[in-house]
Amino acid sequence: MNDNTLAQAVGSATAAAIEAVSNQGRWGADDELGTLNHITDEVRARAVSEARLGRFVSLGARLDASAVIPGPMAAASPPFGPVVATKFYTGSPPMSMAEQLTVNTHHPQLTHLDALTHTVVDNKVYPGVPLPERATFFGITKGSSAAFSGGIVSRGVFLDLAPGGRLPERFPITGAVLDDACARTGVEVLPGDAVVVRSGWRELEPGRATAGFTPDGVRWLGEKSVSVYAGDIGDSHPILDPENPTPLHRIGLVHLGLVLCDAADPTALAEVCAELGRYTFMIVFAPMRVDGLTGLPVNPLAIF
Amino acid sequence: MNDNTLAQAVGSATAAAIEAVSNQGRWGADDELGTLNHITDEVRARAVSEARLGRFVSLGARLDASAVIPGPMAAASPPFGPVVATKFYTGSPPMSMAEQLTVNTHHPQLTHLDALTHTVVDNKVYPGVPLPERATFFGITKGSSAAFSGGIVSRGVFLDLAPGGRLPERFPITGAVLDDACARTGVEVLPGDAVVVRSGWRELEPGRATAGFTPDGVRWLGEKSVSVYAGDIGDSHPILDPENPTPLHRIGLVHLGLVLCDAADPTALAEVCAELGRYTFMIVFAPMRVDGLTGLPVNPLAIF
Amino acid sequence: MNDNTLAQAVGSATAAAIEAVSNQGRWGADDELGTLNHITDEVRARAVSEARLGRFVSLGARLDASAVIPGPMAAASPPFGPVVATKFYTGSPPMSMAEQLTVNTHHPQLTHLDALTHTVVDNKVYPGVPLPERATFFGITKGSSAAFSGGIVSRGVFLDLAPGGRLPERFPITGAVLDDACARTGVEVLPGDAVVVRSGWRELEPGRATAGFTPDGVRWLGEKSVSVYAGDIGDSHPILDPENPTPLHRIGLVHLGLVLCDAADPTALAEVCAELGRYTFMIVFAPMRVDGLTGLPVNPLAIF
Amino acid sequence: MNDNTLAQAVGSATAAAIEAVSNQGRWGADDELGTLNHITDEVRARAVSEARLGRFVSLGARLDASAVIPGPMAAASPPFGPVVATKFYTGSPPMSMAEQLTVNTHHPQLTHLDALTHTVVDNKVYPGVPLPERATFFGITKGSSAAFSGGIVSRGVFLDLAPGGRLPERFPITGAVLDDACARTGVEVLPGDAVVVRSGWRELEPGRATAGFTPDGVRWLGEKSVSVYAGDIGDSHPILDPENPTPLHRIGLVHLGLVLCDAADPTALAEVCAELGRYTFMIVFAPMRVDGLTGLPVNPLAIF
Repeated sequence: MNDNTLAQAVGSATAAAIEAVSNQGRWGADDELGTLNHITDEVRARAVSEARLGRFVSLGARLDASAVIPGPMAAASPPFGPVVATKFYTGSPPMSMAEQLTVNTHHPQLTHLDALTHTVVDNKVYPGVPLPERATFFGITKGSSAAFSGGIVSRGVFLDLAPGGRLPERFPITGAVLDDACARTGVEVLPGDAVVVRSGWRELEPGRATAGFTPDGVRWLGEKSVSVYAGDIGDSHPILDPENPTPLHRIGLVHLGLVLCDAADPTALAEVCAELGRYTFMIVFAPMRVDGLTGLPVNPLAIF
Repeated sequence: MNDNTLAQAVGSATAAAIEAVSNQGRWGADDELGTLNHITDEVRARAVSEARLGRFVSLGARLDASAVIPGPMAAASPPFGPVVATKFYTGSPPMSMAEQLTVNTHHPQLTHLDALTHTVVDNKVYPGVPLPERATFFGITKGSSAAFSGGIVSRGVFLDLAPGGRLPERFPITGAVLDDACARTGVEVLPGDAVVVRSGWRELEPGRATAGFTPDGVRWLGEKSVSVYAGDIGDSHPILDPENPTPLHRIGLVHLGLVLCDAADPTALAEVCAELGRYTFMIVFAPMRVDGLTGLPVNPLAIF
Repeated sequence: MNDNTLAQAVGSATAAAIEAVSNQGRWGADDELGTLNHITDEVRARAVSEARLGRFVSLGARLDASAVIPGPMAAASPPFGPVVATKFYTGSPPMSMAEQLTVNTHHPQLTHLDALTHTVVDNKVYPGVPLPERATFFGITKGSSAAFSGGIVSRGVFLDLAPGGRLPERFPITGAVLDDACARTGVEVLPGDAVVVRSGWRELEPGRATAGFTPDGVRWLGEKSVSVYAGDIGDSHPILDPENPTPLHRIGLVHLGLVLCDAADPTALAEVCAELGRYTFMIVFAPMRVDGLTGLPVNPLAIF
Repeated sequence: MNDNTLAQAVGSATAAAIEAVSNQGRWGADDELGTLNHITDEVRARAVSEARLGRFVSLGARLDASAVIPGPMAAASPPFGPVVATKFYTGSPPMSMAEQLTVNTHHPQLTHLDALTHTVVDNKVYPGVPLPERATFFGITKGSSAAFSGGIVSRGVFLDLAPGGRLPERFPITGAVLDDACARTGVEVLPGDAVVVRSGWRELEPGRATAGFTPDGVRWLGEKSVSVYAGDIGDSHPILDPENPTPLHRIGLVHLGLVLCDAADPTALAEVCAELGRYTFMIVFAPMRVDGLTGLPVNPLAIF
């Protein structure tokens, strides 16, 4: 990583701190796993030891498929969400009901994992290599969804940043904020853990500015050796600090190689954690097994 | 269910046997869960007790995304698989790499779950209701992917029908064949279990006829109160018995309400089971959380 | 055609009149051209004789492409029209700008031609054959867009049913209404002519009922041996007469084999005709040349 | 235009010659029409005077739609062409047959018009402006398909570069070659004419190198004030001269603002011209009327 660039981006003090947790080069120039390297056999053993009751909760935002209405019956211009279904003709009478899906993976209403090549800064991607070495118009050649298409199993830790409510607009999520959340429920984030964050923001609301991560918040995730970040909030909309736009993606993905699960919905998880008085669990990410992509829709399950 | 119809389809003896395990009406005319009703708290508790090591294996068939090549660079006519990626322009220089996916859910190369409305017989779907009551061109109104979009957790049992090899062409999978497989490794299928079957057939091969389920095999799954069937084989290609085409779909889905996971790949599972000498495990299905569909791509994980 | 069915549909008097102009069987059981059979060399010679000035006007409704916004930048749920563009990544820096289009051909905002198999009545299509003989899930095998994908050239005649205004809501378009329009400008519709109709309805308006064709209006088109009907109005929305729904499609396409150009926009044509004091012209339909479809987007040009 | 850049690209002599015919700036910094500016009322009057017989021929390459086969019936991986049809479910029984099209506009098998923003050189597009001023990920804001979505009518001139045969592999098309073709049939290209070129190359053939344009050939088109270039050949595949890649696109589109019709099929035209002994005709381009795009599928008609 070029120190100047990062210093310009986040200020020299934070830059030095982030530099200390950057993973560019840590696992080699060909690394495709990023922070998934933190998930060792020991971490997974700890993960399954959390699953004792058989109770589970989905962290995927529930979504209705949008329908493409066939021609003559089409409404003028229906609103389309991230997953659109075109129902197939299968004969008359029909042999089956089936559909073709059109999926806009990184849509802010669709819970999804970001591959390490998703965010590009100065035409470079994790671990600091030129984009054309990782992507052509034929697909992502390295650093694609292959890193997690076989599934991720780890221990999950739930941090509720605004129990029972919502973070204020434009609230800056720093390391201290995350420390406070840990202290509140007495949890400790261990290397390889997946961190699930609730801010109380579920939807972008026209005219309102969400809370969002600061570079210092991203540094904290690096320092803790978090494997996956999953939240109902990530980078703010609109940008919190024009000097440091979208640090969770531009620093987290590009410098830390931090696998992100955007647009998760921890609403039900918050209730179950409160009910059980437990804030750690086994977490499973099992997206469809397709390689060569910049991300995949996913439905993380927290299993107690 | 109309006895005549079924009797015509499978012969009166089998018809009576299937009638005995049919779930049409069992959970009411509005049931949307089918055999997922078998997964009780007790079943899930048994499931998590199987996850002790933290080792896991994917049952999803690994797939490379097909690429839509932009216009002038397009090859004449590339072969397209079940998941096609159209890479987005995000500005110059690009802000991110992202793509739009086109997914043919029920494609024989894509591991996926079938919703209970997927198969239509005589214009009716599970639990024996007219298709128009369950589907319009706006989407599936009842009996859709909503049944499992929040995830499925159960105990999995692995049955290898052809250890180290492959079933013969056109081999009929009956209840006795499944009993033999259980006996071979000493496993017992309990109510609510997900059964994972390996036949050794992974791809349709031009000019070759696969093995496939018989009505009696389906009866066996009903008798055992299996919650989910996942296999590298299901109904044969081409049809095994023209009098009883595709019994796993036409009887399993429509009469038993049996949730099917088509086109799974248990190759790696077979190796891990053999290595560990264990044929039961926790199984997790966590497809993207989209409702209103006839199925969803899925990547089942077997966790030991 | 079965007399009973048609009589039930339109009443026996009209049924007899339509029967008299039905083209089912007229050009044989394998006919794929329908009323395009009326366009003879003589008709085309008359057509080109109308093009003398070099002035032309488009009858296609102007449309902006809807954009699929790439993932992270996606608005929540933008409204999507009939033509959606996904812009391609072509490298960084980009070699070219290009896009993939998703087209909902029969959408009411997209000017398009209907192939003769588009409308299905009682599982039959023009010229009265069972749908499965004309369509499989591989495509339309007969009676597809191939009939006109090579282009249509004929004489066009403009009939303005509501000069300077708009037909009343639910106004029934009969043969007499069409005769009146001809008389108003002194035009005569000759065999093989394409008729362009303006009603003043351009958009479906929520809560309002459009004007629309009656069976008698369709009979008139048949009697005149019209080759193509193009209008800003066709069948009414909602249905004018529940006993005779959508006669332009169900009688025109299915019984007359009448090629329809839905959702045309004759606004500019009306102005040019008035300015020139001429209501006949050369008309050219030149959709993209793709066969096997139920219709094609088109931009008819009236050339004076 | 920067002389250095062009000189580097094509050599200083040719650069000067092209500079002389460049249209960058000619019609202002906001020009969106390019060479369509050459089509005056007089040109159009000349055009219609060519249409006397009513005989016409399509220059669109005939194409079968590729079908998306619904899930369970899907073949493994069918080859997909430029236009893919997904057939809609419209109820059971079906109300109509309809489909959703996926169109790869600039595909080498689909006859299409290029908008002036299609080709990007050094992040700039016609008339020499930075790409971001003309394109965002919402669409093309200026210089889009709007230039021709209302239709193009002009005089067409047919130049057969290889009567009865095919140009040799890697044959360089220069101005002299075009002059020869004109002389062969005694035609003169006038300002505003659309030129239709036949080389005898219809398909890219693996392992073979097509003929293609040289910068000098492009200069010739500029010198003649051609409005539209339509050909079965354009830039060679693979690139003829690595120093001057794809001159028809990189010089023609970007410097001349020359509207291109790629992948036309003049096979039938050649026959009709020979039969009639006429090499000029009225030409009509009437693509679907959609604005904001980098190109549109089109079916040019030559009308005699």
